[in-house]
Amino acid sequence: MKKTILAVGSVAFDDVETPFGKRQNALGGSAVFFSLAASHFTIVNLVGVAGNDYPAEAIKMLHQHRIDTTGLEIADGLTFRWGGRYHQDINQRDTLYTHLNVFADFSPKIPPVYRQTPIVFLGNIQPGLQLDVLGKLQRPEFVALDTMNLWINTTRPELMKVISRVDLLVINDSELAELTGAVNLLKGLQILHELGLKYIVIKRGEYGAILSSASGLFYTPAFPVEQAVDPTGAGDSFAGGMIGYLGECEHIDCDSLKKAVIYGTVLGSFCVEDFSVDGLLNLNRRKIGARYRQLRQMVKL
Amino acid sequence: MKKTILAVGSVAFDDVETPFGKRQNALGGSAVFFSLAASHFTIVNLVGVAGNDYPAEAIKMLHQHRIDTTGLEIADGLTFRWGGRYHQDINQRDTLYTHLNVFADFSPKIPPVYRQTPIVFLGNIQPGLQLDVLGKLQRPEFVALDTMNLWINTTRPELMKVISRVDLLVINDSELAELTGAVNLLKGLQILHELGLKYIVIKRGEYGAILSSASGLFYTPAFPVEQAVDPTGAGDSFAGGMIGYLGECEHIDCDSLKKAVIYGTVLGSFCVEDFSVDGLLNLNRRKIGARYRQLRQMVKL
Repeated sequence: MKKTILAVGSVAFDDVETPFGKRQNALGGSAVFFSLAASHFTIVNLVGVAGNDYPAEAIKMLHQHRIDTTGLEIADGLTFRWGGRYHQDINQRDTLYTHLNVFADFSPKIPPVYRQTPIVFLGNIQPGLQLDVLGKLQRPEFVALDTMNLWINTTRPELMKVISRVDLLVINDSELAELTGAVNLLKGLQILHELGLKYIVIKRGEYGAILSSASGLFYTPAFPVEQAVDPTGAGDSFAGGMIGYLGECEHIDCDSLKKAVIYGTVLGSFCVEDFSVDGLLNLNRRKIGARYRQLRQMVKL
Repeated sequence: MKKTILAVGSVAFDDVETPFGKRQNALGGSAVFFSLAASHFTIVNLVGVAGNDYPAEAIKMLHQHRIDTTGLEIADGLTFRWGGRYHQDINQRDTLYTHLNVFADFSPKIPPVYRQTPIVFLGNIQPGLQLDVLGKLQRPEFVALDTMNLWINTTRPELMKVISRVDLLVINDSELAELTGAVNLLKGLQILHELGLKYIVIKRGEYGAILSSASGLFYTPAFPVEQAVDPTGAGDSFAGGMIGYLGECEHIDCDSLKKAVIYGTVLGSFCVEDFSVDGLLNLNRRKIGARYRQLRQMVKL
């Protein structure tokens, strides 16, 4: 019996330019990338806000991927829009603009049918809103949290409060250092575990990911792609693949989380191979499984 | 029966400042770090040049580590000296000065007893000199090559010539991109393999290493240390651990090279935990083996 996932985050249009081309009005937003990646494993209940310019075909596409959009509020105004340009070194980018639009006043509403969703992903939004969402849910089995430097610097007390109430924190190396004040990885992880956090996943982009838990560290490399076309949404796709796989697991423990981070990096690799969400659409479990096995082969003696 | 390794490279004094302290006149140089790391596996024949200020105790210490210094020329003048300061983020450093001194006119001399050494490590020196060394040796079984951006940019034709004559190239991500013109890792590796190179090892510092060979890619994470005190020589210690282990292998093939890169990252981890070569001195195979097994555990499901 698969477990449904509740995902809260942004719904956006992206205007993106990379060395491989340009896309305007591309579907984006953390909740959308996350949900599409996770949809290959289980059903996703999406919570977010879009403007009334958000296309009906996009919502239809989400439905076709088993994504429930009862929690997708359509507000008067324009959808969140992000513009960015990637460098020749595709790991570098400049943000050209961030128009929050209807996302500026986002206050996540949890439809009654969502309240018992067993697995929760609190995407990268203001920690106060993440706490609100948690308060509206009935004891979920597993809660994962994403955040960013902005919240570490501006709303640390609320962020620490959310952290103390979740099972898993997804973070990158520099965020870990900022959050804990420890330059050393092991020290940073120790500080967070001492706060009561059971699982920490360090996202390292092209260098893979690390899971830290009671059973120590687990490393996976990133799946190496022939051509990274557009990295937008890779981190959210990573989280979607990881949490999505947990929806298939009867028990969520260290062992399932190790496999989950591998699925995360596999979904991240599919995401970057095409613009916007396109790399996540023409996928199936066979293709995902093949990359999972290839990646495991790359660490075998 | 262990195989001896011939190592050519620099012998230096380092004046180093890191967030954890300061050392003046510390032993350094690629040949010294390499040899001390490799000495835990087999005998090393060192080829390099020092000035007549190089201390007798340093040479005695090398002998105590089974390092043959017949090939260490003592020239009139001062030993190569490098001064550097590491940032709070220990992966960043500024070179304060590079006094080549006697190293400026280094022309490697191969003692007759070294000519049949089966395994060769051509440390990071001018490719023309690396070619000279190769010309003086009697068909070694395995040759590994290190290089740097300087030679890629200034002596590319000679560098390409050496590359075509060795078995293994040790390089980092940015050097691979500069050398091949390919931003993508897989493309860069393909270009080098098409030149006839059998093995390529990508050093990624704290992110570990990749071996590329006919049997595909093999990834190992770096061994995570509690405190990186001084990264000077980590790359050379990595190479020393890797090539040193090959000295223990009856057959040098993909399988032995996979294990070798793990030993490389283990020796690199011991190097960074103390200043200068100190982290490589109070070591034994038991300590090295323990980290090897811990590292393997960190990729196991």
